[in-house]
Amino acid sequence: MLHNNLDINKDGHLTISGVDAIELAKEYGTPLYVLDEDMIRERCRTYVSEMHKYFSADSAPLFASKALCFKGIYPIVESEGLCTDVVSPGEIYTALAAGFPPEKMFFHGTNKTDRDIEYGVESGVGYFIIDNMNELESLARIAGEHGIVQKALLRLTCGLDPHTLEAINTGKVDSQFGVPIDTGQADAFVKAAAACSNIQVVGFHSHVGSQIFESDSFNRQAEILVAYAAKARDEFGLEIDTLNIGGGIGVRYTENDPAPDIGARVAEIAEHLNAACEKYGVKIDRVFMEPGRSIVAEAGTTLYETGGVKEVKGYRNYVTVDGGMTDNPRFALYKSEYTVLNASRASEPADYEVTVAGRCCESGDRIAEGVKIAKPERGDIIAVLTTGAYNYAMSSNYNRIPKPAIAIVSGGKHRLAVKRESFEDMMRNEL
Amino acid sequence: MLHNNLDINKDGHLTISGVDAIELAKEYGTPLYVLDEDMIRERCRTYVSEMHKYFSADSAPLFASKALCFKGIYPIVESEGLCTDVVSPGEIYTALAAGFPPEKMFFHGTNKTDRDIEYGVESGVGYFIIDNMNELESLARIAGEHGIVQKALLRLTCGLDPHTLEAINTGKVDSQFGVPIDTGQADAFVKAAAACSNIQVVGFHSHVGSQIFESDSFNRQAEILVAYAAKARDEFGLEIDTLNIGGGIGVRYTENDPAPDIGARVAEIAEHLNAACEKYGVKIDRVFMEPGRSIVAEAGTTLYETGGVKEVKGYRNYVTVDGGMTDNPRFALYKSEYTVLNASRASEPADYEVTVAGRCCESGDRIAEGVKIAKPERGDIIAVLTTGAYNYAMSSNYNRIPKPAIAIVSGGKHRLAVKRESFEDMMRNEL
Repeated sequence: MLHNNLDINKDGHLTISGVDAIELAKEYGTPLYVLDEDMIRERCRTYVSEMHKYFSADSAPLFASKALCFKGIYPIVESEGLCTDVVSPGEIYTALAAGFPPEKMFFHGTNKTDRDIEYGVESGVGYFIIDNMNELESLARIAGEHGIVQKALLRLTCGLDPHTLEAINTGKVDSQFGVPIDTGQADAFVKAAAACSNIQVVGFHSHVGSQIFESDSFNRQAEILVAYAAKARDEFGLEIDTLNIGGGIGVRYTENDPAPDIGARVAEIAEHLNAACEKYGVKIDRVFMEPGRSIVAEAGTTLYETGGVKEVKGYRNYVTVDGGMTDNPRFALYKSEYTVLNASRASEPADYEVTVAGRCCESGDRIAEGVKIAKPERGDIIAVLTTGAYNYAMSSNYNRIPKPAIAIVSGGKHRLAVKRESFEDMMRNEL
Repeated sequence: MLHNNLDINKDGHLTISGVDAIELAKEYGTPLYVLDEDMIRERCRTYVSEMHKYFSADSAPLFASKALCFKGIYPIVESEGLCTDVVSPGEIYTALAAGFPPEKMFFHGTNKTDRDIEYGVESGVGYFIIDNMNELESLARIAGEHGIVQKALLRLTCGLDPHTLEAINTGKVDSQFGVPIDTGQADAFVKAAAACSNIQVVGFHSHVGSQIFESDSFNRQAEILVAYAAKARDEFGLEIDTLNIGGGIGVRYTENDPAPDIGARVAEIAEHLNAACEKYGVKIDRVFMEPGRSIVAEAGTTLYETGGVKEVKGYRNYVTVDGGMTDNPRFALYKSEYTVLNASRASEPADYEVTVAGRCCESGDRIAEGVKIAKPERGDIIAVLTTGAYNYAMSSNYNRIPKPAIAIVSGGKHRLAVKRESFEDMMRNEL
């Protein structure tokens, strides 16, 4: 099995953390997102303990709200010692509603409106990650109006290209995110920020991209940020003690993806960071990392009911499921690969090649192409693995399809965390 | 201007059907979908009157619910004499809630679950468009259980490739939609359907694709369907009197797209259809067409507020807006082109080349690349044209961003049709 929380029981059904997937589908209906809380907690603990080997006790990994934002996730990650990033007032609202402390929030985003900034300031968000000069000016004004000094990090781009997908590559110079060091534009940005009396710049942030398996760009980024911290101190009189070095560590969608070694990754980054600090005489007291999807992605499994098989003679076999691009748009957006199982016949040979098509009236509504599963019949439960990140978060009501429920499994038990959307919900704001 | 309902007023602001776009943004907030009801009605009337020149009075164009489904759209299209297609219980529910008569609904969809079929039967949907053998078997059983005879069309694929985008090309043999004629599989499908005592097969349906400008594939499809109707009559004893010949007529996203001549298109199809009927001795009493997005797309404009400009020296200029792939995922999905205007400075020269980036923390969150607009400042209103179809319908809450409001303009007046989603709405089902 792709992940170690998956198994097959005596009925030949897929189990998730010991819970029968077919029972889950019966209990909560399909499509259904299933989240393994134990696996999420284990990932959080690994990041926290590995980071604390090298960095101070108030260093922490950040939970990536944008990968999976719902009320019930925040108590889990908070109790494991994570801070969180938030990218919108909606994410701040949800985290606050779940009791997450605002001072542990890092407010990201390339286009914060004045209303967003006011919302963040009034919510008591710990750190703004200031993306650009427009935001800096607005935040300085709004913090002043509120009579506060807002702690902030400045987002810089290091000009690194991690050779990942265009859509999730944020670190190169030609990016809508942050202010580039290479072009000299960061200097003016840092000088202006240092001069704002209502903003306390505690550090810098940079982010290379997402779903990254090679470590080289992380390491170089750490060095570039430390070198730039020395320049900011020497030339602009701005002394920082905090770095948020981003992240975006890859996860396993298929057997072809390597299993990243989190401990080794953290150790390697720490080594480069500490060496750079020594080289440039910079002291960093707090380090934050953004493990991104790797906290939740592999802990998520989507269960669908199949409408059956359509064999187009001489071409291929389609298996249709009762969800698709509405609950998981990643194939439609990026042609992302997934591992698919027939959860009802998990012990039968996976020898029937299919294209998994969703239920939308759109040819592009697919979940996977050319995957092999045990041949399904109408009513079988199909499982798609590694759907904990960027599935619920990106879901839509296209074709007027309600968003699925989320069930959480933990310790062999299960509970509902998000109710299935109703038709009435979808129409609630329509006059 | 790209569409004839757009103009510039004395303040240099864009107007939509005579209404100042800046006033609309102030009144309802941004991002805002603006729909021109008068333009939608005019399109409906054109299709209805052109079709009635050649086809019987109970022939009609179908409204494509999946392009734009909200409660307020149904009274508009119904009053203009359209029937509607629906692809899910959610669309049926919305249309019924708006008072749309179920007998004028055509229930599409490649994977109708048993629950979907029950919902359609119990709602009194006029016509099922049966996609495949699995659905046929379920519908026959469920109609029997309900003691009704369900009217239906059978969806066939004609093996035509209209050379459009892969994601919206539904008519070729290798498709998840319908049953192919070329492979011989349609014969078994038609024979089985004709033998179902609780299903009355009144006709066939086929659909070539979407956003199509050339007429050749439509014309050939009409001929193939009529020829197949003759075969079904002669070989399987099934006589049909209804054809739904699909549609998917293209719309203007940019000045490079031609303006389709609806009258000429309908005339051409009628000519081929009638010639084929004569040639094969087939009598068709009712014809339905699916104009798809062309009823609503051009009537829609999205208004955004810009956070400002980011000039990455030596690379390009980014203008960020307070929406993006959450309200319009079509660039992210298909790299769709759009026409973009600075609505606040509509009379200034459009000479500043920009990439329009959305507010999500994702590099792929773009609306347009390399478009020229009047140089914006933070707070300017940016208009993106031709967003009436597949925008609200495909919108998501990615980055926890609420769905925008919809305002309708008509006769120089405006009204709210869909309220902006609240943070509480997004969290409503989270326990």
